[in-house]
Amino acid sequence: MISMTNRDFKENLKKINQFDITKDTDIEELINSLKDTGFNAKRLALACEIYKEMINTPSCVKFFGLAGAIIPVGLQKVIHDFIIEGYLDVLVTTGANLTHDLAEALGYHHLQGDFHSGDFDDEYLHQEEINRIYDVFMPNKVYEGIEDFISNLEIPDTQMSVSSFLNFVGKQLPKNSYSVLRACYDKEIPIFCPAFTDSGLAMQLGFYNQKLNLNHFKDMLEMVNIAWDAKVAGICIVGGGVPKNFIMQSLQFCPNSAAYAIQITMDRPEPGGLSGATLREAISWGKINESAKYSTIISDATIALPLILWYLKKSRN
Amino acid sequence: MISMTNRDFKENLKKINQFDITKDTDIEELINSLKDTGFNAKRLALACEIYKEMINTPSCVKFFGLAGAIIPVGLQKVIHDFIIEGYLDVLVTTGANLTHDLAEALGYHHLQGDFHSGDFDDEYLHQEEINRIYDVFMPNKVYEGIEDFISNLEIPDTQMSVSSFLNFVGKQLPKNSYSVLRACYDKEIPIFCPAFTDSGLAMQLGFYNQKLNLNHFKDMLEMVNIAWDAKVAGICIVGGGVPKNFIMQSLQFCPNSAAYAIQITMDRPEPGGLSGATLREAISWGKINESAKYSTIISDATIALPLILWYLKKSRN
Amino acid sequence: MISMTNRDFKENLKKINQFDITKDTDIEELINSLKDTGFNAKRLALACEIYKEMINTPSCVKFFGLAGAIIPVGLQKVIHDFIIEGYLDVLVTTGANLTHDLAEALGYHHLQGDFHSGDFDDEYLHQEEINRIYDVFMPNKVYEGIEDFISNLEIPDTQMSVSSFLNFVGKQLPKNSYSVLRACYDKEIPIFCPAFTDSGLAMQLGFYNQKLNLNHFKDMLEMVNIAWDAKVAGICIVGGGVPKNFIMQSLQFCPNSAAYAIQITMDRPEPGGLSGATLREAISWGKINESAKYSTIISDATIALPLILWYLKKSRN
Amino acid sequence: MISMTNRDFKENLKKINQFDITKDTDIEELINSLKDTGFNAKRLALACEIYKEMINTPSCVKFFGLAGAIIPVGLQKVIHDFIIEGYLDVLVTTGANLTHDLAEALGYHHLQGDFHSGDFDDEYLHQEEINRIYDVFMPNKVYEGIEDFISNLEIPDTQMSVSSFLNFVGKQLPKNSYSVLRACYDKEIPIFCPAFTDSGLAMQLGFYNQKLNLNHFKDMLEMVNIAWDAKVAGICIVGGGVPKNFIMQSLQFCPNSAAYAIQITMDRPEPGGLSGATLREAISWGKINESAKYSTIISDATIALPLILWYLKKSRN
Repeated sequence: MISMTNRDFKENLKKINQFDITKDTDIEELINSLKDTGFNAKRLALACEIYKEMINTPSCVKFFGLAGAIIPVGLQKVIHDFIIEGYLDVLVTTGANLTHDLAEALGYHHLQGDFHSGDFDDEYLHQEEINRIYDVFMPNKVYEGIEDFISNLEIPDTQMSVSSFLNFVGKQLPKNSYSVLRACYDKEIPIFCPAFTDSGLAMQLGFYNQKLNLNHFKDMLEMVNIAWDAKVAGICIVGGGVPKNFIMQSLQFCPNSAAYAIQITMDRPEPGGLSGATLREAISWGKINESAKYSTIISDATIALPLILWYLKKSRN
Repeated sequence: MISMTNRDFKENLKKINQFDITKDTDIEELINSLKDTGFNAKRLALACEIYKEMINTPSCVKFFGLAGAIIPVGLQKVIHDFIIEGYLDVLVTTGANLTHDLAEALGYHHLQGDFHSGDFDDEYLHQEEINRIYDVFMPNKVYEGIEDFISNLEIPDTQMSVSSFLNFVGKQLPKNSYSVLRACYDKEIPIFCPAFTDSGLAMQLGFYNQKLNLNHFKDMLEMVNIAWDAKVAGICIVGGGVPKNFIMQSLQFCPNSAAYAIQITMDRPEPGGLSGATLREAISWGKINESAKYSTIISDATIALPLILWYLKKSRN
Repeated sequence: MISMTNRDFKENLKKINQFDITKDTDIEELINSLKDTGFNAKRLALACEIYKEMINTPSCVKFFGLAGAIIPVGLQKVIHDFIIEGYLDVLVTTGANLTHDLAEALGYHHLQGDFHSGDFDDEYLHQEEINRIYDVFMPNKVYEGIEDFISNLEIPDTQMSVSSFLNFVGKQLPKNSYSVLRACYDKEIPIFCPAFTDSGLAMQLGFYNQKLNLNHFKDMLEMVNIAWDAKVAGICIVGGGVPKNFIMQSLQFCPNSAAYAIQITMDRPEPGGLSGATLREAISWGKINESAKYSTIISDATIALPLILWYLKKSRN
Repeated sequence: MISMTNRDFKENLKKINQFDITKDTDIEELINSLKDTGFNAKRLALACEIYKEMINTPSCVKFFGLAGAIIPVGLQKVIHDFIIEGYLDVLVTTGANLTHDLAEALGYHHLQGDFHSGDFDDEYLHQEEINRIYDVFMPNKVYEGIEDFISNLEIPDTQMSVSSFLNFVGKQLPKNSYSVLRACYDKEIPIFCPAFTDSGLAMQLGFYNQKLNLNHFKDMLEMVNIAWDAKVAGICIVGGGVPKNFIMQSLQFCPNSAAYAIQITMDRPEPGGLSGATLREAISWGKINESAKYSTIISDATIALPLILWYLKKSRN
């Protein structure tokens, strides 16, 4: 048992809250009710509370790792608001999310419709040049828009870091869009993308700029510096993957490992991969502090993330 | 592609909704926003909409299957409200949920505390006679309370059906409790429990009444009659298991298979078990109608079910 | 840490086995190699070793819980062999598996083919009267065969226990089939089916025998007696569900809780349901002994179960 | 339904194989038996058959994507043999696997022991400087060994591609080890690692070589060239992640998308992430061919991958 003698355990026991919901319940009340239940509901409530404490701790550097098709599915504005509201200080994400963010920022759209997931004819979709992401769609013509944009970019330095390049891209994008790239530019939030060349965006960049060699090592060292300097570190991991590991490895040998940690994922620990690893395991590595507050929610991020944002907005007023 | 030509597919495509959340958002607005996204968020929204339509269809007989530790974890009042509000007409559940419902109705409590799941010392818990359900606890002394109740029951008929017996039990319970058994008694909602002898409640009944032979076949036939008579059938499955199959098998050879179907589960189809089977598969069996509206949410019910109840209460006013 | 001081932990550490596979490897060697690795491979190896020890302990009563579509998918002979080889002493299963077992025993067949799972047109299947279980199929005409059989049964006692009835059914079935019902009859192995009325077999029985009231409570008490008398108890749980709980509840208040426990499932602990609960949690309930040897394999049973049987057959010679 | 009229479907139906296992069964027989069953067993068998066909097709370029803690858990020799036997032509993996491969190649070891997963005291482990990967352990002193190695490397070109650098590293490693890096060097197999800076290996490289700027774009373009030139492409994806996407994106606009595809993962499609996406979805993107043979196994790779290797070695003799 962590940080608890067995005696403490018994004294700590309280009644389960057989909570009430009315039409007038608000999100803050709901989360407060769930706090005294169990399973994933409780861990969602705990994550909300931890995130609020992260925000209310001015010295806390909030690392946010984002994997999964979060932009295509409709959470661009949700992530945008995490940035604009000051709920994150460092964003680590996948090249795919940045590609999709760019597409939406340029006026293209991801698509959906009133039909069942699983009922799609992928051969037909291929003929029609419509790419499928489960029950979300992206027409191939989006690539043309990205290509136009990329082919006109005048990249200031072929050896700049990926994060500097992404900052430069953000600056070109429409100011009033929901773009994550633009919001990070506006708020001076660094975006790290360690697997940048694993994306449609980088593919087109590479085709148009054969000499491009964005410096990934510079990003790695800069990330370590940010982690090193953090008096208090807090992390929110959505979906695991490279963003999770990149944040975690940066904190591993720092003076202050994470004091707060939230994880939203559908992956589980038993097969041993990092995406599903418990936050508690990260204590052994020194990535998360022994006295950290942490919570993992096993949930589709499309459900959990909007609820957390909603709670944060509501409870801060 | 089901019920859709490829031409229809393209005409049906709409923009993903990059939705907005403010502190003043309400649950109805959130669900409406999620409707035009994808993944589980969309399917949660679709489930909400389908459930509302079920409620607004007076001829619809609403079958509700409940598996998993829903009462211990704190959703007793949520289920109670589904019953009291008229959101279900037939309840099929596990003996475990009924045992836990009885315990709470008799004034006992399930417990939780401010510690991490997974950090428990089960040997210590055993010594202390505290039974663990993930991060929820039930002391053994609850059994004594159930035993007192059971030993004083004067069962009217040793061969009555399980559902008649459960109705009889419900009648003995406090009127103002959150008890599911009592709520069903008050609203004249039948409770079916096909695996009743797989429960602590039945164990104690059996010990005190060696001649008891509650008639499970009578329940089975009564359930088929209800399904047979349903002009419109709607189903909501929480967690799968025997409750799912019992509802499904009753509808299989009926004139009207289910016109509405909702499923909340963490199980998946690939290993072939019924709990994770898609609702679409049930069409092949004739359990769900070809033109049914249906939605499966891959989510912990402790998150999805309160949201659905909240939406239903809010949107009906 | 259970049963281990931290000092013991360090002394216990050994090198991971970077094991070798050749064309001449046999299953015993493979399992022995996996023993010194990690993740599910290690836990499969541990389960094999535990099962072998259960078999080699003459006083061990081996409870086997079987849920999931194991007979339809092609594991009838595998289960049959567990019975015939003496690898189990008590079988607890679902009505569905018994229905499918009966079908195969009567000469009907489940079907499959050379196509992708997920690519099926369930409306077409319904028109053709072919029921789908993921990528396995059962034509409706199988029901006619079961109906013929059921309608001709002369049930000796309408109030007999379910297990006695299943023994009676087993006796009617062809001796040289792979039938689980027949094999249990031949080996005098009791079959318990707590949710018997949740099955196609019971539906037809009920239609043909309106007065039938098989005694489920008698089964419950008999199961408790077997568990009570077991000097050593071992359990193998495939898929969870009612069979898991029924075995577990029988052991809860016995003098000797389980000394060996194996679990094969795709369910996980986080949503709190019993099917995914860890075996360690069962220690708090007194269902599994504090000093028990146990192992959970997160795997489709269609892969893990044949490997275990293969290992047991090979290593016992 | 893909590539199949409904008429074809019925003609294609065959009996499920209620297969037999004896102590003399061999892996080829087992897999052949599983071929005519269902669920994941069938898909494992199908994957074996597809892999064999890939190997027997001389023009097939076999892309192998490897994510997850495969080297730490004990599958280094298994992956080594895939390389040495000629079962793969291009390897895409994570920086973590390469870091762990290097550690083992330098004579360090990952550790395990005879205790239960989940029973670890991560605070104690942190004090003892033992890092945990589920139930596998890596002492911090391994990093010192890697540091010695890295600090003595004379990197020929600070702007070389990552794959060239990895080839250079492989050359320095002991010839008779099980090292994946060395085996790829010996067999002239390119290793791509798109998220290389997301690893302990890259961290140390970066600390010792502040001017290092390995060219990730060169890798990306080289990978596209290999995919473009492939007359026949086959892919085997273990665990998803960046390796999966990197292989897939390379094939997207090629003249010949993948004709064979195998996927081993515990991730599922419903949350919309790429790791769990079906192979069929990749047809819409043009990454996999409409007439491709493909199979996804939902299994821990520690179980499935050794079985596949065993089958391939056995069936090729």
